[in-house]
Amino acid sequence: MKKIFAKIAYDGSAFSGFARQRQKDIMSVTERIEIALRSMGINDEIISAGRTDKGVHATGQIISFCVDEKIQISKIKSLLNYKLYPYIFVKNIYETDMSFQPRFDARYRGYRYIFCDNFSNPFISKYVSVEKYGSKELIQEALNLFVGKHCFSYFKKQGSDTKTDIREIYKATIYQHKIFSKNCNIIYLQANGFLRSQVRLMIGAALAYSRGEITLEEILLQLDCKKHSYSKPVSANGLYLVRVIY
Amino acid sequence: MKKIFAKIAYDGSAFSGFARQRQKDIMSVTERIEIALRSMGINDEIISAGRTDKGVHATGQIISFCVDEKIQISKIKSLLNYKLYPYIFVKNIYETDMSFQPRFDARYRGYRYIFCDNFSNPFISKYVSVEKYGSKELIQEALNLFVGKHCFSYFKKQGSDTKTDIREIYKATIYQHKIFSKNCNIIYLQANGFLRSQVRLMIGAALAYSRGEITLEEILLQLDCKKHSYSKPVSANGLYLVRVIY
Repeated sequence: MKKIFAKIAYDGSAFSGFARQRQKDIMSVTERIEIALRSMGINDEIISAGRTDKGVHATGQIISFCVDEKIQISKIKSLLNYKLYPYIFVKNIYETDMSFQPRFDARYRGYRYIFCDNFSNPFISKYVSVEKYGSKELIQEALNLFVGKHCFSYFKKQGSDTKTDIREIYKATIYQHKIFSKNCNIIYLQANGFLRSQVRLMIGAALAYSRGEITLEEILLQLDCKKHSYSKPVSANGLYLVRVIY
Repeated sequence: MKKIFAKIAYDGSAFSGFARQRQKDIMSVTERIEIALRSMGINDEIISAGRTDKGVHATGQIISFCVDEKIQISKIKSLLNYKLYPYIFVKNIYETDMSFQPRFDARYRGYRYIFCDNFSNPFISKYVSVEKYGSKELIQEALNLFVGKHCFSYFKKQGSDTKTDIREIYKATIYQHKIFSKNCNIIYLQANGFLRSQVRLMIGAALAYSRGEITLEEILLQLDCKKHSYSKPVSANGLYLVRVIY
């Protein structure tokens, strides 16, 4: 056996999320990839760097799986891309160490959240979120609170089990970028890892602060696991897993 | 009563097509708009300039419907857009003559077909078609055959009833355009009207000629309703109804 490392992109709006689901009416990204692999005679289960929620996209998700020694790696990429068309695309593929673990070996993950304030283009609704917000400066002020090592128990989807809720955020910045000649906002978040819905809850709290609905003190109390002031994740359409670094 | 003229855009990948359907699992554009109108107390049925097929988009579809004299037109647009979010967007709306008929009054319709040769971006699959094709010059050569007045009986979806199959094509041109820094091809077709699937069958024949699969003579014989050589419409994803002129 040999282990394959693959960097993939996918349109999250076409799937029920990354992880395998019991519910069978919409397929998960995992199921879609494993069906393609089975048809190529590859029977391993895939492991990913992270499980994106329903509607969340990826331009740099990492997966690994094992294949038989005699399978030529150069052929896997083109055959997989043929079979995964049109909503999943394999960007890079190569052989890696058998000990490689895409989830536990990741040093950091980067997410990008794209949003704007109105919805005049029906073709980008699945890819850009529409949110109400105040100034860029206020959003950045709130984002700065998250940088550093914190226990994010109050910034995760309830019912999600994790060994520890401590994560370290390295970067949290907002900038502007034109998409189809429209000014959009992009928040980039980088951390050693994120809890379930953590990105969308943190961004939601920062936008709520910029709208004057909560205070910086309330965000800090929530970060200290003392008081729950904000609990509505922003919509998934504008969220992309863009980078995983090992 | 007064009559409303509205120019709308929609993401065809979210609907079963423009026309009302018997099948109930996916909604048509018509049903989606009429549900929104009902909730605003407007009970008229909408009429459109043309019925786009499943998966076909629009940036310039025209619809009309009647409303009560006392409804303010300025409010219809914003309320409709609020209710139609995210896959349909009303671009313009105004009062028109009660005799206005979006289908029969149209002088010409313009369609754009966007396509490229590979699929490395999973986010544009619903909006750009992937097709195999030869040179731009060969495609243009085949497109030129369609310009003028012809009977398109052999370039329509079988089973579609029409009073006459004669249509006049005014323009049929191919040009290149970058989309997300990728070179894409765009075919623009303008005619007084199109039969069902006519655009996709004409483009399919032109691309088949550019690939060396059929000859110009075979296209001409099909245009003369003498011999059916080509019958596979290109995929709908890249097709947009962009303009209707009255």
